[in-house]
Amino acid sequence: MSNVDIFVGEIIGTAILILFGAGVCAAVTLRFSKARASGWIVITFGWGFGVLAGAYTAAPLSGGHINPAVTFGLAVDTGVWNKVWVYVLGQMVGAILGAILAYLLYFAQFRANVRQTGTTDGTVDEPVPTLGIFSTIPEIRNPVANLMTEVLATIALVLPILALVGDNRVVQGVGIGPIPGEGAGIYGSGISILLVALLVVGIGLSLGGPTGYAINPARDLGPRIVHQFLPIPNKGTSDWGYAWVPVVGPLAGGVLAALIYNAAF
Amino acid sequence: MSNVDIFVGEIIGTAILILFGAGVCAAVTLRFSKARASGWIVITFGWGFGVLAGAYTAAPLSGGHINPAVTFGLAVDTGVWNKVWVYVLGQMVGAILGAILAYLLYFAQFRANVRQTGTTDGTVDEPVPTLGIFSTIPEIRNPVANLMTEVLATIALVLPILALVGDNRVVQGVGIGPIPGEGAGIYGSGISILLVALLVVGIGLSLGGPTGYAINPARDLGPRIVHQFLPIPNKGTSDWGYAWVPVVGPLAGGVLAALIYNAAF
Amino acid sequence: MSNVDIFVGEIIGTAILILFGAGVCAAVTLRFSKARASGWIVITFGWGFGVLAGAYTAAPLSGGHINPAVTFGLAVDTGVWNKVWVYVLGQMVGAILGAILAYLLYFAQFRANVRQTGTTDGTVDEPVPTLGIFSTIPEIRNPVANLMTEVLATIALVLPILALVGDNRVVQGVGIGPIPGEGAGIYGSGISILLVALLVVGIGLSLGGPTGYAINPARDLGPRIVHQFLPIPNKGTSDWGYAWVPVVGPLAGGVLAALIYNAAF
Amino acid sequence: MSNVDIFVGEIIGTAILILFGAGVCAAVTLRFSKARASGWIVITFGWGFGVLAGAYTAAPLSGGHINPAVTFGLAVDTGVWNKVWVYVLGQMVGAILGAILAYLLYFAQFRANVRQTGTTDGTVDEPVPTLGIFSTIPEIRNPVANLMTEVLATIALVLPILALVGDNRVVQGVGIGPIPGEGAGIYGSGISILLVALLVVGIGLSLGGPTGYAINPARDLGPRIVHQFLPIPNKGTSDWGYAWVPVVGPLAGGVLAALIYNAAF
Repeated sequence: MSNVDIFVGEIIGTAILILFGAGVCAAVTLRFSKARASGWIVITFGWGFGVLAGAYTAAPLSGGHINPAVTFGLAVDTGVWNKVWVYVLGQMVGAILGAILAYLLYFAQFRANVRQTGTTDGTVDEPVPTLGIFSTIPEIRNPVANLMTEVLATIALVLPILALVGDNRVVQGVGIGPIPGEGAGIYGSGISILLVALLVVGIGLSLGGPTGYAINPARDLGPRIVHQFLPIPNKGTSDWGYAWVPVVGPLAGGVLAALIYNAAF
Repeated sequence: MSNVDIFVGEIIGTAILILFGAGVCAAVTLRFSKARASGWIVITFGWGFGVLAGAYTAAPLSGGHINPAVTFGLAVDTGVWNKVWVYVLGQMVGAILGAILAYLLYFAQFRANVRQTGTTDGTVDEPVPTLGIFSTIPEIRNPVANLMTEVLATIALVLPILALVGDNRVVQGVGIGPIPGEGAGIYGSGISILLVALLVVGIGLSLGGPTGYAINPARDLGPRIVHQFLPIPNKGTSDWGYAWVPVVGPLAGGVLAALIYNAAF
Repeated sequence: MSNVDIFVGEIIGTAILILFGAGVCAAVTLRFSKARASGWIVITFGWGFGVLAGAYTAAPLSGGHINPAVTFGLAVDTGVWNKVWVYVLGQMVGAILGAILAYLLYFAQFRANVRQTGTTDGTVDEPVPTLGIFSTIPEIRNPVANLMTEVLATIALVLPILALVGDNRVVQGVGIGPIPGEGAGIYGSGISILLVALLVVGIGLSLGGPTGYAINPARDLGPRIVHQFLPIPNKGTSDWGYAWVPVVGPLAGGVLAALIYNAAF
Repeated sequence: MSNVDIFVGEIIGTAILILFGAGVCAAVTLRFSKARASGWIVITFGWGFGVLAGAYTAAPLSGGHINPAVTFGLAVDTGVWNKVWVYVLGQMVGAILGAILAYLLYFAQFRANVRQTGTTDGTVDEPVPTLGIFSTIPEIRNPVANLMTEVLATIALVLPILALVGDNRVVQGVGIGPIPGEGAGIYGSGISILLVALLVVGIGLSLGGPTGYAINPARDLGPRIVHQFLPIPNKGTSDWGYAWVPVVGPLAGGVLAALIYNAAF
């Protein structure tokens, strides 16, 4: 597994993840979308199946981390750190690329985000804030509570993944790359990728209420950078004051999950 | 795998896909349906489980493409083109057959698509346009943007499928038919068919907002032909001006996905 | 596989199916239920996961048909008819038992199905008709159209099941019982049972709009008998005039699916 | 499998279960949650995927019971009782821990559970009762009916689990711990854990209407203890008068399921 394979795999996998994730938020948020206002169940399954698609596309090349918190968790678990920078760099590039693709896919909808006067009934439809399509926004702005939420939600992601994939990883001397000969990346089987995807759906349903569950630093920071530069009408603030929470929280959660895993298993 | 097997398999598989897909759109759209107005989550899962049913029914005979974009993607990937015409012909016949079956299944509902005066409360219920049950309609009519949406959404379908199924296909000299001895068509296992079905649910949830995600030329063109000829009351236009977008976009997306796959993997 | 095993297995499996199926209809229909008015997505997943639970509980004993249409389809496919009566008898007993269990589980809710005067806001809540909890009711009463709907929807159930499970059944001389040594009844693997359950969810979502998708004679007739005799307040009619449609339609559909399967595969 | 492994495994697994389960109830109930009022489908999938996450995290250590009713059912089935106390103790500690974690994750939301005067439109938002986030509350308070509901719903949980996992357990002399060498706890495979998780979703959808489906004594009692002591504004009663029903009912259901299983299989 070369560095180029890891880099390309994580770019493609994370781009697919964010295309689906930012896509479903655009689908539910923007006017002139068939999925407008279709609710939390749509958002959470959209993100979860984005994990499914991204992870099993990236699996043959990089193992399919598509999340720095997973990369950090595996590195703490196995003690192998020399490839971490390749993973994280690929994830950031992929997250930026995916956000741009989601913008292009919803191009006409983003352009129509202006004040509309209803033609038939005389009502007026105001533009919507767009940051929530790209990055997370807390419902109650409280850095300590928001950080605690992201740390706990990320532990709930990485600890089950380690229990699923980590069994003989350290013993066999396998680092953070794919399990050789299994064809399903770090997960070992297609069913395990499905379990992880449904786990992410569950985290969204159960733990996403307060902050919108970043649980992945690249997922939040990459699209926020894109939001900063895109020429979207009435796009609103990119809210850089909050940007550190969904980076620090998930990284801390990933590391803590690995420490719990190593202590308990 | 004979041409007859491919032809019959793709007819049956695509007919099941469209029966479920047009069926769920009828279920959500038409009056006197128990699922009326049950929302985007119902539509996307209905289409996804239609892929599940169609692909694993067709798998033993033809491998279960049920989509010309998948057929084109596999042909570009493997360089094997001699069976493509059999696949696409079967898919078109199957899509037409499936749309007719959906019409028959919702026969009484289609016939009741006339102006109704409420018997109890005096309200009036107007007939609904029916093209959306058969084919896709963009929310914002913008050919360039609509085409971009369909191309990107189809890449998001075919690239993961190639990553899942394409691994040793070229190396082993297997063409675009089923993987021998696996019993699950081109997908290699029942779990892979499930992953593809959930991928299609995810594409619907996340990427279907702008155009209604054709991502399959037969899925759109076959039912549109049927809509043109069916004697449905108040059926409205068949909108042939848009018909080229959900054919050209998905085919281009399938080819692009294969090119990305061959470059990256 | 003794006749007693088949009989007991089909009783338990079909009872679980109907407990879940009638249960979810009670959950969505009755007052004082936490799931009241939670919609079509809840009903269809409730029935589908009832298939999951019933089929894999019955699998070790009888193979897990829990549906006379599946039994008839397998009998036509394999030419083995000598056990059919045991299966169907068990399914009918199980369906009756399951409907009684659902009634007991929602006992307090059924007893409360009387005219209620709101205590806080003075509104009045009328009792609801209860037949829809037990058996199917068409949205538009048209025997020919209703029969066509049930026939087509049952073909869409049994044909994929035969494609999934029927492969070497005739060749190997295996009748309609479990595949030996597989531990998952007629389905061959746990993943196949899951695929069938999700297929049933899909049939509900896509094809259930006109008649409520009986697609199983025991599922409709058994609970209708129970409804006839239960002492539910304001229970309404048991609608015996329609009872033949969800028996004849699914049986014809199961036979037709097997004929299509034998011709095409 | 040491007692320490069992104890730690059940603590972690049950804590994850309750974090997801109490989490999703908080998500749907509390103000300033992105999932507020998102309905029964969200609650049931949140709990089901909590089972998924908890069971496969605990699987390598303890087998992944995370429910005293499952532990009792397996003990009656196998006749092995000497580890039962370790399981149940771990489950209770885990349930208490999980409820505290859910409280911390929704900390800001719980603190905001006070009377709010709308800033823009002058409306007033009253605090919500919070016990339903932690423990079950019947819709109609009728101890006999509520007990019957919990007994039947738990049979519908434990009987399918025994059919799935119990096959050769007694014959092989395997007690209530993990199946050796399978890597998926008592379930034997990742797909079986998924089937159990979807079974729990189905129980919620179909059988949860009257009482909110405790079907697990630790799931109800542990969080109720936590609710008693947490400093939540306007938290309302902890309703100890009902607390025995969701303990006695599930235990009786687990034992009855094992007796049915032993008689029939």
